[in-house]
Order: sequence, then structure tokens, then C-alpha cells
Amino acid sequence: MRPSGRDLSEMRPVSIETGVLKHAEGSCLVKMGDTHVLCTATIEDRVPPFVKGTGLGWVTAEYGMLPRSTGSRMRREAAVGKQGGRTVEIQRLIGRALRAGTDRVALGERQITVDCDVIQADGGTRCAAITGGWVALRLAVGKLMAAGDIVSDPLPDPVTAVSCGIYAGQPVLDLDYPEDSAAGVDGNFIMTGAGRLIEVQMSAEGATFSRDEMGTLLDLAAKGVGELAARQREATGA
Amino acid sequence: MRPSGRDLSEMRPVSIETGVLKHAEGSCLVKMGDTHVLCTATIEDRVPPFVKGTGLGWVTAEYGMLPRSTGSRMRREAAVGKQGGRTVEIQRLIGRALRAGTDRVALGERQITVDCDVIQADGGTRCAAITGGWVALRLAVGKLMAAGDIVSDPLPDPVTAVSCGIYAGQPVLDLDYPEDSAAGVDGNFIMTGAGRLIEVQMSAEGATFSRDEMGTLLDLAAKGVGELAARQREATGA
Amino acid sequence: MRPSGRDLSEMRPVSIETGVLKHAEGSCLVKMGDTHVLCTATIEDRVPPFVKGTGLGWVTAEYGMLPRSTGSRMRREAAVGKQGGRTVEIQRLIGRALRAGTDRVALGERQITVDCDVIQADGGTRCAAITGGWVALRLAVGKLMAAGDIVSDPLPDPVTAVSCGIYAGQPVLDLDYPEDSAAGVDGNFIMTGAGRLIEVQMSAEGATFSRDEMGTLLDLAAKGVGELAARQREATGA
Amino acid sequence: MRPSGRDLSEMRPVSIETGVLKHAEGSCLVKMGDTHVLCTATIEDRVPPFVKGTGLGWVTAEYGMLPRSTGSRMRREAAVGKQGGRTVEIQRLIGRALRAGTDRVALGERQITVDCDVIQADGGTRCAAITGGWVALRLAVGKLMAAGDIVSDPLPDPVTAVSCGIYAGQPVLDLDYPEDSAAGVDGNFIMTGAGRLIEVQMSAEGATFSRDEMGTLLDLAAKGVGELAARQREATGA
Amino acid sequence: MRPSGRDLSEMRPVSIETGVLKHAEGSCLVKMGDTHVLCTATIEDRVPPFVKGTGLGWVTAEYGMLPRSTGSRMRREAAVGKQGGRTVEIQRLIGRALRAGTDRVALGERQITVDCDVIQADGGTRCAAITGGWVALRLAVGKLMAAGDIVSDPLPDPVTAVSCGIYAGQPVLDLDYPEDSAAGVDGNFIMTGAGRLIEVQMSAEGATFSRDEMGTLLDLAAKGVGELAARQREATGA
Amino acid sequence: MRPSGRDLSEMRPVSIETGVLKHAEGSCLVKMGDTHVLCTATIEDRVPPFVKGTGLGWVTAEYGMLPRSTGSRMRREAAVGKQGGRTVEIQRLIGRALRAGTDRVALGERQITVDCDVIQADGGTRCAAITGGWVALRLAVGKLMAAGDIVSDPLPDPVTAVSCGIYAGQPVLDLDYPEDSAAGVDGNFIMTGAGRLIEVQMSAEGATFSRDEMGTLLDLAAKGVGELAARQREATGA
Repeated sequence: MRPSGRDLSEMRPVSIETGVLKHAEGSCLVKMGDTHVLCTATIEDRVPPFVKGTGLGWVTAEYGMLPRSTGSRMRREAAVGKQGGRTVEIQRLIGRALRAGTDRVALGERQITVDCDVIQADGGTRCAAITGGWVALRLAVGKLMAAGDIVSDPLPDPVTAVSCGIYAGQPVLDLDYPEDSAAGVDGNFIMTGAGRLIEVQMSAEGATFSRDEMGTLLDLAAKGVGELAARQREATGA
Repeated sequence: MRPSGRDLSEMRPVSIETGVLKHAEGSCLVKMGDTHVLCTATIEDRVPPFVKGTGLGWVTAEYGMLPRSTGSRMRREAAVGKQGGRTVEIQRLIGRALRAGTDRVALGERQITVDCDVIQADGGTRCAAITGGWVALRLAVGKLMAAGDIVSDPLPDPVTAVSCGIYAGQPVLDLDYPEDSAAGVDGNFIMTGAGRLIEVQMSAEGATFSRDEMGTLLDLAAKGVGELAARQREATGA
Repeated sequence: MRPSGRDLSEMRPVSIETGVLKHAEGSCLVKMGDTHVLCTATIEDRVPPFVKGTGLGWVTAEYGMLPRSTGSRMRREAAVGKQGGRTVEIQRLIGRALRAGTDRVALGERQITVDCDVIQADGGTRCAAITGGWVALRLAVGKLMAAGDIVSDPLPDPVTAVSCGIYAGQPVLDLDYPEDSAAGVDGNFIMTGAGRLIEVQMSAEGATFSRDEMGTLLDLAAKGVGELAARQREATGA
Repeated sequence: MRPSGRDLSEMRPVSIETGVLKHAEGSCLVKMGDTHVLCTATIEDRVPPFVKGTGLGWVTAEYGMLPRSTGSRMRREAAVGKQGGRTVEIQRLIGRALRAGTDRVALGERQITVDCDVIQADGGTRCAAITGGWVALRLAVGKLMAAGDIVSDPLPDPVTAVSCGIYAGQPVLDLDYPEDSAAGVDGNFIMTGAGRLIEVQMSAEGATFSRDEMGTLLDLAAKGVGELAARQREATGA
Repeated sequence: MRPSGRDLSEMRPVSIETGVLKHAEGSCLVKMGDTHVLCTATIEDRVPPFVKGTGLGWVTAEYGMLPRSTGSRMRREAAVGKQGGRTVEIQRLIGRALRAGTDRVALGERQITVDCDVIQADGGTRCAAITGGWVALRLAVGKLMAAGDIVSDPLPDPVTAVSCGIYAGQPVLDLDYPEDSAAGVDGNFIMTGAGRLIEVQMSAEGATFSRDEMGTLLDLAAKGVGELAARQREATGA
Repeated sequence: MRPSGRDLSEMRPVSIETGVLKHAEGSCLVKMGDTHVLCTATIEDRVPPFVKGTGLGWVTAEYGMLPRSTGSRMRREAAVGKQGGRTVEIQRLIGRALRAGTDRVALGERQITVDCDVIQADGGTRCAAITGGWVALRLAVGKLMAAGDIVSDPLPDPVTAVSCGIYAGQPVLDLDYPEDSAAGVDGNFIMTGAGRLIEVQMSAEGATFSRDEMGTLLDLAAKGVGELAARQREATGA
């Protein structure tokens, strides 16, 4: 039995509230159970040097956790003077995933920065950040399209992420924090709404896994992504 | 006329929602118009070295702004690698103000860290942070008192802050961002609920002011603090 | 009785020696009792990005303390790798105060950087830095006027700062270190030579204060500023 | 056809030279084609705070590239003042992988730090670092066992890594730099010598992939890992 | 002819004023022409970890330049966030030189930190810092001896430094800034008052030199050191 | 007797292997006994700002030690977040020495960066870095000359470095680590192949030295430099 009483393949309640911040070109507050992440998208005319002159767009991401989003207070990275390894790893993943789902020709030579700030953490923050980050990105792109700045839709299909793992010997979908800390194997699965794979990260801490177990987790992930992508489409009116 | 259409001595709508985060010992989301600040209080047994062994408590604060809390995206301080001068100045002010309103003997040798994170900014974030920070602090102290860890109340009276300034030649209460950027003189007034002064910071940018003008702003501030302290008391059941 | 034996409204001996460094466009060594601050002004043609093209000038300041300016050695900020919160707060105050007293149109699109380095500290270093910083600034501006680079005087009236506080229950002028460390309330008052207010910073540490007490301290400050402004005028031949 | 003329499932020539540095407890120079990585293992009695008192061992890793290991010179991270995001991500991966293959009870409460420094880069440096890092770790552990400090072998089975990807529409094993930069999908597969999975990281840049393609790459990876594990066993006499 | 009109073997006017700062255990302001360096010595009971328990003393040094000690303003190292390479090199040299002249057994297990801050620079700041640093150190040690904390004198002979170089084809003593910037070869010579060598640093920038030229510069240096050591002895009453 | 059994004026076995890295324009692995340093030279079209437009070339250097090049593991400077004082001092020395031996007019307005990374340390790493650094530089320049980008040879004569010191009361050539740690006086001597001096750095730690002793060490150094320069010429075919 899962600590939350959920079925093995049952996700936590999901909600995606859009337009939560007045300044950002796109924003949402995504909640997956008690994991709450605020996502914003900012449109900028400048692009990184290595993109300049290519005509291609760029999508990048930054990630942070509020100091008291967690059970015991984390040190504020701005005060420490650098982003920790985990933060860097996660924000690189978010950026890579959103770029993979973006038609950079259609986006045109501009940059969109997606900020994902964890307000409250209960496992799965990177997946929530990707799922919500896509919504914010989609809303910002929607403004560009409405204004005629972009003609062809660069984001036809959601980018969606979910975690699965082996907890207490059982494959489970959408791990919360108590499951995440105890799981021998866990993975993050990033897919398109149509079910194509974008990124798979599976790792064992203190254990190993077989290809069969990997297949089972992929099945669970596909189910979760399907449910989440429906929510993303609702939230963005896509 | 003020850009918002408010009367000269009219505050923005204020709301203080408590208990918004499940992990923190005390938390609230304070809204002064479109300025939204999330405040949390964390109780720790350790105190800074210079307090150790004195039997006195310590209250400290950290402040941050989400990158897209503002009209154009700010660089994330964690990514830049240091807190900017304005951030440092503000968090020192918050800590000093809350300490001034705390009976450190009654608190006992423990530290409470108040985190104030600006979700959305529209002027007056430091005042909102102090007002909301006190609420979070009070809630955390309430838990310590309920548990019998503290016997005598170290926070008998709210610590409350409001800004006033001279905008378009007129003294106004509770400046929003359009007023703040145009004001020749503005001040932050931190008081106890009983109207005693804790800290006054008035400054002129491109102008100077007289003692009479200072007096007028103090009158306005006293009015604003009175209204805010009532809200703080409601929110904390004090 | 004050530790130094001074009357309540008696300043420490003040001296302002100008032209102490051969390279700087303006320089002075200001002494307020045992507090000694070396101030220099550097004229630069470049201005910060946000000023560029406005035709306005800019005045900024940096502040530092020599490691052994204090009773026990402070760690050198260059070796630590960053300026502490107190340093940042003070140098922002100095810059803001000097700008408030400068006619930025008359200055023209150039920057003057005022460096204030504390050689020896005995309380009131930020006030001495502002008072001496204005002298250095005035001397540098004098060179620009003598050379015909500036026609209209951008610094008609001194910017002057003094501290006052409540020490042992009594309002006192120009706190030295023993008074400063024990004062329940202390304030820094920045005024023009003509007595207009530029910035007021009053704070209570472990106490609160009333409007009446604030008024008494403002009276004391006005007296001190009058005496200091006379010295600034003498030193700069204004 | 692959740029190197290799068959789709053909690895580059592999060599593992051990004992290359006289000071380290374990060391090797691993070459996978033109990718050369120097790996060392250092035994320390101290463990990180979160391990202290558990009786468990700890394995951690650091990764670096010499500035001119690459086609154009990279800035030296020590001079820049921080490790880049890619470096941090890779060294966390190496540490996690080696820990997953270590019996931390058998290791006992000590730490082994594995340093992987890329002397020359031609794709697949992180995989070479894991494969060579395990050899250095094994040699260091061998010394501890020879000295009787460890009784039961904490490293019974190699930890081995190889990259696979889809290059020019074809699944290929062990990508070199020209392939890596052009591949639409690539993955790093970390396994035990016995073929159990430890970590899988697949990502698409500008493309997506199906479960079938994932399966094909896993087959290739298993072949490569088998060949590499044989070399690791030879090198360590296991 | 030298720009200053000095003879080839003529030093600039030297003065050493002691006791210039009231807080430091030893202090002096050393002037070699227009090069002015403020030196302080701070006695601390703690020693660095690698000295602890050896019974030996430790002498270390830090060096800094005020931003406007030079012709054009230097960036403040505390604001930049690190000490530059030149600063680091110089402060290591000062520490090494003073240690070489100290009987660390006689000093006993304590640390003395010598701070050398350049108030005004006109060439030869590192030599002035060593010469003045020894005076500050000697005065601090004098207090320890007067108090009976040290019995045997750990500083029997001055540590003294002077620069020499080849300027316009001629060997010259005590280079000022115009000479220093144009010299093809220059050297810093650190000796004891008795004429024993402690450290020699000679370097050619855009030239080379012979052993004969080296000999000539050593002769000049010996002359300069003799004159400086006399001043150091006067200043310290040794 | 020397720990290694060498004669007083006997160097360690020297080898210089060139072309060890495929990407660098010049590279070598220099071994002086157990001290192994990898040196590369990178040609860049950009020059530092202070050289721009002068028509002169620039040579600069960076130095690093692999964490386990030493008996006990050193902390990785990239992870610490800054280069230590010793590193900075050494890389400045290498750059200065190589520049002194370079005809910057002949080099033309381009920069060559020499990276020296210590793979294994056993004393004398900075001397090996200079000796090997010159070889890498020479090879890179050779490419420029072969391509006709440089017409006149900017490096006619090797830049060579060797250490000497007084160990156990005896002058010895080419100190290894056990000698280096115990030597009362040691020096680094940088010369041209023709025997002209470029830089001399002699220092005493816990001792002093006379001019006679300095002369003896210079004699030894000249012998060592002669032998090393022959090896540099062989390695570069000069």
C-alpha cells in the first residue's frame, strides 16, 4: 500500500491555474498534490550568442525552491552565492525538454525564459515544473501568435513529465516525497502529448533494475502523461 | 489625482491569508493591492555565535523577489551568484524591525528565520514583507506557546510597516509602483500596533523635504499602521 | 554624563583636511574625534547604462573599512570575496545622499565616484563619510568648473550628515562608539546646509520611540549639521 | 556510414592502463578512441556529515576537462570561479553510478573520492569516466582488502557505461564527437557487468523517439557494456 | 637623468611615522617619496591549523590598495569579489619575508597579521609595505615583550626591502612609478639589516640581463637597505 | 647525500614528448623525474584590450594541478571556486617568463595561451611548466610560420627554468619534493638558452643567504639550463 492510499497507477490530484501573475507573458500555478510550482514565461528579443543570426528561437529555463518549500528550511541559494548541483541539473533538464518540443524555426529568433519556482515541495517538482512550464510557454507563445508576431504554431503538442518508480517492490506512478525518499529505482519520463519520448532518466540508488521493470514503468508513465497532457490542453485552450 | 484613483490617505485593499504552506511553522500570503509577498517563519534551535549562551532569542530575515515578479524580468540572484545591494538592505531592515518588536528574553535562546519572497511586485514590497513577516512570526511563536516551550508572550504588539511619500506635490499613503517611481520624497514607517516608532526611513531622490512635510507623512503613516495592525491581529487571532 | 564628558549637544572636534592625495580630482581626510575617513572623488566620462543619453550626471559612492580601523581586526572584504551587508547599505546611502544634493542637469553626462575609506573608526563613520564625501565631490566639481567643463554650479549647498540618539535616557548629538553600542535609539540625519532634510534614518534596537523624541533628535541634528556645513564651506572655499 | 568507418555496433578501440600515477591509491588512464580520461581514487577516513555514524561508506566523484582537451580551448573552470552546469551534472552522475554498484556496508565508514579528468575529448567522456572511475575505485579497494581493512568485497561486479544514439537515422554504439554533435537522440547507459541497469539517460535534441528505438539502443548498449566490463576485469585482475 | 632628478643611487625621501592608529597593537605610516603605505600589526592568540600544537608562532600579511591611490581609479577588490593576482602575489611575498626574519620559537604559538594598505602609490609599494610592515610588527612584539608575554626578542634585525632596476640603460636605486613603468629590468631585494639576503626577485619584461648587471643592482640594493634599516631602527627605538 | 642519491649538480632524468594532444596547436608532456606536466599552446586571434591596436602579440599562461597529482589529495580549485594564491603566482610567472623570451613584434597581434597542468608532482613543477610551456609555444609558432602567418621567428632562443637550493647545507641542482620541503633557501632561475637571465626568484624560509651562496646557485642553474635547453631544441627541431 502507498502511504497516501493511492492505487499503484493513480496520480495525485492535479490542477493548473493560469494567469496567476500580472506581469509575465505567460504564467501558471501547477499543483500535483502538495507539490506547488509557479511557472512564468518571459519573451525577450535577444538570443544567446550561439543562436544569433540563425533565425532560430531559443527556450531556456531556470528553477528554484523557496527556502521553506521543504520540511526543514533549505539555505537560500542567492545567499549561499551559487546554485547547487541539483538545481543546475534540473533547470538544464527543463530547458532541454521544452526545446525538444518547440519548433525553433516557427518560434523565430527570440528567446523565451521559463522560470519555475517551487512554492511547496512534496516530490516530483521537476516533473511539475516541466508540465507547468510548458503551459506558461504556450500562453506566452499564444500572445505572440495573437499579435501576429508568430504565424505557424511552434508548440503543436504538449511537453509533459511524470515520475514513476519502484516503491516497496511495486511499480508506482507519480511518487510523492515519502515514496521518492524510499524508492530503490525511480525515473522521470518526459513525453509529448502524442506519447513520443523526449527524455528518459532512470536511476537506481542502492539497487539495480531489469529491462522488464523499465518497461513496466514506461507503461505507467504513458498513462500519467496522457492524463496530464489533457490538463495542459484544457488550461491553454489548445 | 492618484493613478489608482485612491484618496490621498486611502490604502490599497489588504488581505492576509495564513497557513498557506504546510511545512513552515508560520506562514502567510500578504497582499497590498497587486503587491503579493509570501512570508514564512522557521524555528531553529541554533542561534548565531554572538548570541550563544546569552539566553536571548534571535530573529532574522531573508528577502527575495521571484524573477518575474516585476514588469521586466529581473536576473535571478542565485544565478548571478550574489544578493544585490537592495536585497541586502531590505532584509537587514526586516530583521531589525522584527527584532525591535520582540521580547528576546521571553523568546528564549532560539532563532526564528523569516523568509519574505515577493511573488508579485507593485510598490511597497518591504513594508508588506514586514507586516506579513510579523504575522508568520506570530504564528510560529503561537505554536511554541501552545507547546509550552515559551511561557510569556514575546510578541505582545504587532510590528507594522507602511510607506508614505510626496507624489505630484501631495502627501499620499501606501504608494504603488507608479507613484513610487515618480515620488520626490518617500518614506517607510515601521511602528508598533500601539503607535510607537521602531524605524523611520525617509529619503528624497532629486528633492529635499521640510520638517512639516515629515510630520504630515508621519500622520498618514500612523493612520495606515492602525489599519494594518487590525488586520494583523485578525489574521493571528491576537 | 557622556563617556567622553561632552555636553549632550556637543559635537566631537571636527577637522577637514583637503588635497591629501595627489592623484584624486578631489580628496579630504575628515576627522570627527577619533573617527577618520579618507574621501576621494574621481571624475569619469562614462555613466551607468540607465543614465546614458539622458544628459544627466551621476554620483555614486563606495565605502570600506581598513581591517584594523576597529578595536578588533575585521576580515578584509576583498579576501572574504564580498562586501558585507552593512557596507552595501552604507555605500548606497552615501551615493543617494550626495545625488540628492546634486543638480544632475548642471553636472552634465558624467559620473563622479566618491570613495570613502575608514582609516580609524569610533562611531559615526557613515555620517563622516557623507560630510567628507561632499567635500571631495565639491573639490572635483570645482576643477571641472575651473576648466569650463561645467558652467552652472551643481552643488550650491553642502550635503551634511550627523548622528543623534538616545543614550542612557538622554538625547545626545554625534554619538561615539561607546555611546553608539549602548544607545536604544539612534538616527542618521542628512540635510542640506540650508537645513532641508535629505534623508532620515532612525531605528530602535531593543526599544521604541515617540514622535516627541524624534523631534528632539531632529533639533539636535539641525544644530550639528549647521556646525558641520560651516566646516565644509571653509574647507572648499565655498 | 559512420564518419569513422566503424560498423553500427562497433566500439572504438579501448585501452585501460592502470597504476599511471604514483600518489593515488588507485589510478588508470582509460582511452576510448581519442577520448582519454585520467581517473584516480583517493581513500579518506572522513565521511560527509549525513553519513557519519551510520557505519556505511561513501563514494563521490569530481569531473573536469583540461582547457585544451577540446577542439577550441575551453575556459578553465578554476579561473572562471565555478564549475559549469554540465560539469556538475556529470560528476553527480558518476558519483551516483559508482555508489549504486558499491556495497556500502562492506566498504565501511570511509569515503573514496574518484577524480576523472579529461585529457583529450572526442565524445563519450562521461561514459569513459564511469568505466575508468570504477577501475580506479576497484584498485583502491583492492589495497584496503590486501591490508585487511575491508573483509568482504564491496565491488563484486563492474559498473560500466556506454553511449548509444540515433545518428543519420541509424542506431549506433559508442558515439564519437562528430556523431554526438549530429545525433538527434542519444543516451548514456550505465549497467553492471552482469547486465543489470543502474542508470539510463536518453534525450532527444530537436527530435523525439519511440519505445522501439529505445529498445534497439538498449540492445546495443548491452553489447558494449559486455565488452567494456571484460576490459575492466582484465585491468583489475578481478 | 632620472625623471625626478635624483642621482642613480639616491633614494627618495623616507619617513616612518609610528603609532598612527589607536586600535592596532603596532602601526606606522611609511612614506617613500609619494608612495604612502599604512601598516598595522594585529596580535591574535589563534594560529593556522598547520601550526597548531607546534609551539611556533606565525606571521602573515594582507595587502590592498585604496581605489584612488593610483592615477586612474582602480576597481575596489571587495566590490569585484576577489583579490587580483598581483595583490595575492604581493601579500604572499610580504608574509614570507617577515616570517624569514622572525624567530618563530621566540614568538611562541601566536599569530601576528600585518595589514599593508596603500594610501598613495608612486612605485615600490611592495618594498615600502615590507619595510613599514616590519616596523608595525616590531612595535606589536614590543608590547608583548613589555608585558612579559615574550622573553627573548624574536625580531633582532630589521627586514627591509628596496627596488632597483635598469632604467634608460642605467642601474638605479628605488624606482618611482615613471621609472618602474619604463624599466627593462627590475628587482625587489629583501634583506636583513645586517645585509643577509632573504628574498631576491628580479625580472626582465621585454629584455634580459647578465650576472654582472645583477651584481650591480645587488650593490645598489645593499646601499638602500642600509639607509632604510637605520630608519626602521630609529622608528622602533631598536 | 641527496635522498635520491644524485650528485649535487645532477639533474633528474628529463624527457619531453611532443604532440601528445591532437587538438592543441602545440603540446608536450615534460617529465623531470616524477614531476610530469602537460603543456599546451592555443593560438587565438583576439588579444587583451590593453594590447589591441598595438600590432604586438601577447603570450599568457594558466597553471593547474590535478587534485591527485600530490601525495594527499588537494581540493579541486574549480570546486572551491577560486584559484589559490600559489596558483596565481605561478601562472603569472610562467606568462611573464615566456613573454620575456618572445619577440612580440614578430609574433604579430595575436595571443597564445599556454596551459600547464600538473599530472604528477614531485617538486619543481613551475620550472617544468616553463620549460615545457616554451616547447608547446614553439610548436604552435612553428605552425604559424609554416603557414606563412609569421615571417620572422619570434622565439629564437629557448626560455628555460630550473630550481636550485641549499639542502642540508649543500648547494643542489633541480630539487625534488623531499629536498624542496627541507631546503632553507631555494630559487627558481629562468634563463634563455644563451644563458641570459630572465627572472630570478630566491627565497629563504627560516634562514637567510649570502651573495656568495647566491653565486654558487647561479652557477648550478646555468649548468642545468644548458642541459634543458638542449632538450628543448631537440624536441622542437630548433
